[in-house]
Amino acid sequence: MPLQVAVCGPRNCPEADWAHAYEVGRLLAEREAVLVCGGHGGVMAAAAAGARSSGGIVVGVLPDADRVNAGPDLTVAIPTGLGEARNNVIVNAADAVIVVGGSWGTLSELALAMRAGRAPVVQLGGWRVLDEQGRPLSGIRHAATPQEALALTGLWA
Amino acid sequence: MPLQVAVCGPRNCPEADWAHAYEVGRLLAEREAVLVCGGHGGVMAAAAAGARSSGGIVVGVLPDADRVNAGPDLTVAIPTGLGEARNNVIVNAADAVIVVGGSWGTLSELALAMRAGRAPVVQLGGWRVLDEQGRPLSGIRHAATPQEALALTGLWA
Amino acid sequence: MPLQVAVCGPRNCPEADWAHAYEVGRLLAEREAVLVCGGHGGVMAAAAAGARSSGGIVVGVLPDADRVNAGPDLTVAIPTGLGEARNNVIVNAADAVIVVGGSWGTLSELALAMRAGRAPVVQLGGWRVLDEQGRPLSGIRHAATPQEALALTGLWA
Amino acid sequence: MPLQVAVCGPRNCPEADWAHAYEVGRLLAEREAVLVCGGHGGVMAAAAAGARSSGGIVVGVLPDADRVNAGPDLTVAIPTGLGEARNNVIVNAADAVIVVGGSWGTLSELALAMRAGRAPVVQLGGWRVLDEQGRPLSGIRHAATPQEALALTGLWA
Repeated sequence: MPLQVAVCGPRNCPEADWAHAYEVGRLLAEREAVLVCGGHGGVMAAAAAGARSSGGIVVGVLPDADRVNAGPDLTVAIPTGLGEARNNVIVNAADAVIVVGGSWGTLSELALAMRAGRAPVVQLGGWRVLDEQGRPLSGIRHAATPQEALALTGLWA
Repeated sequence: MPLQVAVCGPRNCPEADWAHAYEVGRLLAEREAVLVCGGHGGVMAAAAAGARSSGGIVVGVLPDADRVNAGPDLTVAIPTGLGEARNNVIVNAADAVIVVGGSWGTLSELALAMRAGRAPVVQLGGWRVLDEQGRPLSGIRHAATPQEALALTGLWA
Repeated sequence: MPLQVAVCGPRNCPEADWAHAYEVGRLLAEREAVLVCGGHGGVMAAAAAGARSSGGIVVGVLPDADRVNAGPDLTVAIPTGLGEARNNVIVNAADAVIVVGGSWGTLSELALAMRAGRAPVVQLGGWRVLDEQGRPLSGIRHAATPQEALALTGLWA
Repeated sequence: MPLQVAVCGPRNCPEADWAHAYEVGRLLAEREAVLVCGGHGGVMAAAAAGARSSGGIVVGVLPDADRVNAGPDLTVAIPTGLGEARNNVIVNAADAVIVVGGSWGTLSELALAMRAGRAPVVQLGGWRVLDEQGRPLSGIRHAATPQEALALTGLWA
């Protein structure tokens, strides 16, 4: 079975995050990884568009119970009907999680991925989490470029 | 986006159901529909094997939180971590539901599909449900062959 | 911790089922069992009203993400936001499942309970399930009265 | 229906967080609010013990599919079988969310609550989230004591 990589990010995003997510999606498709995303707009749509531009398979795991809001670049739509509980499904489905930009929904995916502890988590920009003493939490890998984000997953080492 | 059809059935099944499910999977792939299934053995594995034999895309929506028990013929595995609540995800993802054989898990999928009322439900063999007066319930379409099962979905009319 | 019993049934029901569900709820509260139900109308509301009439605790596990549609007799509302996937939560929470009347959603709960195989399942009226050969499936206990329904759970033997 | 307040925190916690959570639980029970928690150890168990010490109703929404790991102070256990997807159920069930201490699971609950935007979110100690520019995110209310945590929910203003 091919590798599966989740790309998580806000449904509204600045242009720089859009470009990052598109490039991450494109690079994943080049490596024949399946892209798993939330299936809506912003970072999710950008990653999907990038992956489709290189012929990749894109799976959108939607909060809705039907496909009405599914993005145009999905190969497969999984309308879960679970609301935001679907964020944990995205995380479970991923060999690695790449987070682009920040929002509360995005942070919940990052936290659920770190909680599960199964897959490497890479951030490309976005929010930062500090512990009680104001120190950055360990475990998240920080990338400056899409290429570095893929490298830091360790999946193609 | 391509059509998505769920094939539901027990994880242990007699040979006749296995052959039916394999042929349903094969025919769906020929029509370029994505097969959505539970990702485990029996009818699910048979449909997956049939779809892959014709180059189709197969999505396994697993009850488990990881891919350890994923079948060998899946293109994409979605380990939901939801247990049997994942049955409703399978149903939500389907433009039509084809049920092969019977088990309690299978019956729950058939019932959830009828409850949702969005997608046509076709049975190929399997259990029967009667109302309080002992009359068969209306709404389920009954097929005798895999070809008829696809025809009764109405998706290619 | 007190016993927890799920009462499942349609959100619209004939008067006879309403009376049955009310009495089941009342008897459960008398025995200090917590009533778990779907939190909406019909059989769910009847069981809740019966339990509250005897001072029982009633938990409504709702498909919705908020409490707008919660019934008036709930002690606790759990708005899951899971849609019909919440049916499996109801089943998991029950030491016994009592089914009053029939509908597709109700049948999904009965099937999920039989699939889990942890808790006894008792039917008071409602639909019937037959296997491929037209024989009734074993395992479900059939009661004629609310009193018998509680007795058949075996929880107070 | 009584108010429902979720108390979220790690399943292993330092003594100071235990004392805070116990007192929050106790104060909630005094105000006749239902305590909703994750049903396991640490902060969850402390809040449950505090609420029970004042005769409050405690609901544990468990990730497991059964009650084997349910804490001793729950009035009602809801074993969801959803894994960490149950975190969104806890959030949906709450009129206010009080977070004590920090962990990745706890952060996912805080993020899901902020994402939903329905209920006030109060933190008593714990982790901090900064935006891309290193600024604290607005919207979370920070309390120094259990009493202040309840006051900041605004539910008893």
